[in-house]
Amino acid sequence: MNYPSRLIEDAVSEISRLPGIGKKTALRLALHLLKRDEQQTRGLSEALLKMRTQTCYCVQCHNISDEEFCNICKNPKRDSSIICVVVDTRDVLAIEATSQFKGLYHVLGGIISPLEGIGPSDLNIDSLIKRIENSPQDERVQEIILALSPTMEGDTTAFYLQKKLKPSEVKVSTIARGIPIGGDLEYADEITLGRSIVSRVAYD
Amino acid sequence: MNYPSRLIEDAVSEISRLPGIGKKTALRLALHLLKRDEQQTRGLSEALLKMRTQTCYCVQCHNISDEEFCNICKNPKRDSSIICVVVDTRDVLAIEATSQFKGLYHVLGGIISPLEGIGPSDLNIDSLIKRIENSPQDERVQEIILALSPTMEGDTTAFYLQKKLKPSEVKVSTIARGIPIGGDLEYADEITLGRSIVSRVAYD
Repeated sequence: MNYPSRLIEDAVSEISRLPGIGKKTALRLALHLLKRDEQQTRGLSEALLKMRTQTCYCVQCHNISDEEFCNICKNPKRDSSIICVVVDTRDVLAIEATSQFKGLYHVLGGIISPLEGIGPSDLNIDSLIKRIENSPQDERVQEIILALSPTMEGDTTAFYLQKKLKPSEVKVSTIARGIPIGGDLEYADEITLGRSIVSRVAYD
Repeated sequence: MNYPSRLIEDAVSEISRLPGIGKKTALRLALHLLKRDEQQTRGLSEALLKMRTQTCYCVQCHNISDEEFCNICKNPKRDSSIICVVVDTRDVLAIEATSQFKGLYHVLGGIISPLEGIGPSDLNIDSLIKRIENSPQDERVQEIILALSPTMEGDTTAFYLQKKLKPSEVKVSTIARGIPIGGDLEYADEITLGRSIVSRVAYD
């Protein structure tokens, strides 16, 4: 496209490097910012740069944090004997929103994906093993919950983690797969429905 | 949502002020930037600020421009006797991409919309009238094409412009409404199909 100004072209090209944003959307966003108060663009620009340069990660669970230890790891009310392994911060937020988990997290920072060139060494797996080994005797890690997506990459990562965790003799579990609440049996895919029968839960 | 860091929260809140981007998408974009090279965020942040603070507008047609007159207004090969009135830069880009128009443009900078509090005085309408009045005798503006969307706001703006342009005795036309190329008669809405019959075009 023949942009009317070099500055617009640069902005569109930078915005469209973001995932899921094409040239047309980028142009729409750029023109929107041009129409608004200069302060809005300044705020956006500064917030992005500040976030990228100053964000740090919890030294224990690798979640994004403002300090050395994140709010969850610092919280004495959380159960440190149970660790939920997730891919990224979004998963932590999603599980926290359920209020059903009172343990700690471990953020892998990605998922094993040979296609994208991401191997086990690129993820925070060694630190998970060390974290289990180094846990104090009175607060020993008892269980690791793998909360990974049921995709090829998720299953590969879960399989790798199971093997890696075997020597440490902690209990390893995975989040339940089954029919979502409100889901209709008729429209569930065969694999999910099959899995929900195999992993059926007995009434108390 | 309970963000793990103040910096992320600020970035998400700034990103989600953009049109069509909610909190979830904003978080996804923020986490994407965190994973990438710092240079990408720096580039984006600088391009946005530079665009907002340094972009200027063509003094004649109000299109975005790097200089006093935009590339189209400066081009001596363009026909200055015919002006196409559009809402914003995106429309100029869209019409330029067709290669069917060799005249000049006039960018209104918006559309009359009482709901959003945008009246005629907020648009570049007076400068259009002056531009026609002040056009030199040998390059007199002969025709104004209104290229506005066939929406309520577009029709209101077109109606207002027609009235305003009447005293200057230029020919005023509008882009054709009808069945799009490749469109199927069966699926065309009644108003469009009706309009295409009323505005039928005779074969030469």
